[in-house]
Amino acid sequence: MTPRAASRAVLACLLLAGVPAFGVLAQEPPPLKSHEVHEDRSVTFRFRAPNAQEVELDFEGADRRPMQKGEDGVWSLTIGPLEPDLYGYAFVADGVTLFDPANPVQKKNFIYVSSLLHVPGPASLPWEVADVPHGRLHEHFYRSSVVGDERDFYVYTPPGYDEGKQAYPVLYLLHGYSDDASAWTAVGRAHVILDNLIAQGKVRPMLVVMPLGYGAPEILNRTEGWRDPSLAGRNVSKFKDALLKEVIPRVEKAYRVKKDRESRAIAGLSMGGGESLFTGLNAIDRFAWIGAFSSAVADDPDKAYPDLNEKTAARLRLLWIACGRDDFLHERNRSFEAWLQAKGIRFTPIETPGKHTWMVWRRNLAAFAPLLFR
Amino acid sequence: MTPRAASRAVLACLLLAGVPAFGVLAQEPPPLKSHEVHEDRSVTFRFRAPNAQEVELDFEGADRRPMQKGEDGVWSLTIGPLEPDLYGYAFVADGVTLFDPANPVQKKNFIYVSSLLHVPGPASLPWEVADVPHGRLHEHFYRSSVVGDERDFYVYTPPGYDEGKQAYPVLYLLHGYSDDASAWTAVGRAHVILDNLIAQGKVRPMLVVMPLGYGAPEILNRTEGWRDPSLAGRNVSKFKDALLKEVIPRVEKAYRVKKDRESRAIAGLSMGGGESLFTGLNAIDRFAWIGAFSSAVADDPDKAYPDLNEKTAARLRLLWIACGRDDFLHERNRSFEAWLQAKGIRFTPIETPGKHTWMVWRRNLAAFAPLLFR
Repeated sequence: MTPRAASRAVLACLLLAGVPAFGVLAQEPPPLKSHEVHEDRSVTFRFRAPNAQEVELDFEGADRRPMQKGEDGVWSLTIGPLEPDLYGYAFVADGVTLFDPANPVQKKNFIYVSSLLHVPGPASLPWEVADVPHGRLHEHFYRSSVVGDERDFYVYTPPGYDEGKQAYPVLYLLHGYSDDASAWTAVGRAHVILDNLIAQGKVRPMLVVMPLGYGAPEILNRTEGWRDPSLAGRNVSKFKDALLKEVIPRVEKAYRVKKDRESRAIAGLSMGGGESLFTGLNAIDRFAWIGAFSSAVADDPDKAYPDLNEKTAARLRLLWIACGRDDFLHERNRSFEAWLQAKGIRFTPIETPGKHTWMVWRRNLAAFAPLLFR
Repeated sequence: MTPRAASRAVLACLLLAGVPAFGVLAQEPPPLKSHEVHEDRSVTFRFRAPNAQEVELDFEGADRRPMQKGEDGVWSLTIGPLEPDLYGYAFVADGVTLFDPANPVQKKNFIYVSSLLHVPGPASLPWEVADVPHGRLHEHFYRSSVVGDERDFYVYTPPGYDEGKQAYPVLYLLHGYSDDASAWTAVGRAHVILDNLIAQGKVRPMLVVMPLGYGAPEILNRTEGWRDPSLAGRNVSKFKDALLKEVIPRVEKAYRVKKDRESRAIAGLSMGGGESLFTGLNAIDRFAWIGAFSSAVADDPDKAYPDLNEKTAARLRLLWIACGRDDFLHERNRSFEAWLQAKGIRFTPIETPGKHTWMVWRRNLAAFAPLLFR
């Protein structure tokens, strides 16, 4: 605990222990309201930086905007009104991107700096926690022989899993570059979305397995790893091996799940979208349902999916290719769709508003999951 | 995704998709080595703040130390050599405490700002991840009738739980003020400690249940809540109710656990230590093992534990009272020990080095868990 923290802890513990420390407490400065959501859903951001020359707000899916310096060195900016959603943001002080120190919720990420803003909305929004039966999250830890490290994966079991006897289908759901295995729940709210849509009868009860998406974790090391030209291929092919040889067998041993290909789906976002295509399209004997959200699809599909053709693809129950209109990967996904079309392969193209953001991917999951295992 | 993040994502995705973007990548500035652990276990911290007048390092358990400004507005400081451990730290720029923006691991906390530094040590340290069988973490979500909110608790199941048939004893393990239910695993590494000590045969296989520790969550709202004099009492008594009436029944329904008092332990740190004493000593019919780490023990034990006496306490198998010598709660714990002694109640006093820090509490858990259920 840091000294300032300790001084607060003294106060807190005295209070908790029943000592009337209110006189002392009154001297503590009130915490800064760093991300205040107003009734009209406009949002005021505040950040203290008394000697900064320039402070900007970096907001998910938007250009940076300058904040204004006010009293006491507090910079502020009001934006919106915003649609109810979860948004990433950061403060940029003299060019340095910083977490909001007065917001306890950060996006866990190996590279990017981002705090999480919740603009609450009605219970009808699939990512809002509602008073419905809740599933459960399980974190598994294991030593990967394929990759050579200690790693984890998360499993969502639906409400009633403990009580029932039936076996469930499984969606393998993959995160993007720089995220970890917790991203689809911590940021994507996959468990909340599934809880809500299952309660509404829109999604069939299923397990969702969220593995760590790096076949070659050195891809995160931007000082050296990025300069190795074989890295991208190694990352995706070792990911596929780890999923098929390590994660799936562990899941199918530990849980009551169906093991036929019609009961197995794979989907992911960005890098994970590329991995869901690479893994799924090269293992059609294992997966009947494939989803790619804003995916970093291979630039040479002939080389990436050598056995894919009209006949093999006919076994797929769903090939769902979604991308936001303003995503920088939009054109790449369009090209891939043209390639599929030219080969006579059926797929479902989904074009949505939006950029390369979680606001798009939460909606992708909420639209994709109801289609599965029907 | 923020614009800067997006520009990096473009590069990453191009690379992942096999596009040779190395020329572009070379133009990205290398990330700052913000917390560099040297071979002798000294540690250099770096933080970019070009216009700050003063930057300090706030390091867990130590006084603030000034950092020195160097080239390019980067402030730095080397400390140590340090003992292998996990340490919290933050940068204080002109009085504002900030997370390290170049460290992906923050301590999740409702109030304090702290990034996490790992100084690796030998596998013999109980919190170092080792190549041993791993247990599993389960996060449960439920609506609390006692408190009136949606909340969660975590459950650690030991290695082999799935394969075995036997019922296990349970340790209820409570976090401190400002933490959430994930603290004992994310920061305390309770699951790693249990994995390692179980593998060494030092700890009996058990479940560890880590609930959210707020009976009155408004205690976190420091602008208003702190001024309500009944708050401390309500927080601890409603916590006890939620644990006994909601968490324990859910655990005992969902898992193969023993349900006798000799198979139930409760322990916690700081506020959670106070709660483990309040809950355990007022429900000796439910718990035979109690641990209090640096606990915010009640200031009036006669009032807090009215039915506790030599006879009722004789049913306890263990009452373990630990506190660091330099903890600000040391004297308070000493007074409590004197009170216990005067009443003829047996207990195990543990005095360790250290302050009110996680470095103490990880060691507390590693020393306490081996004593249980023998």
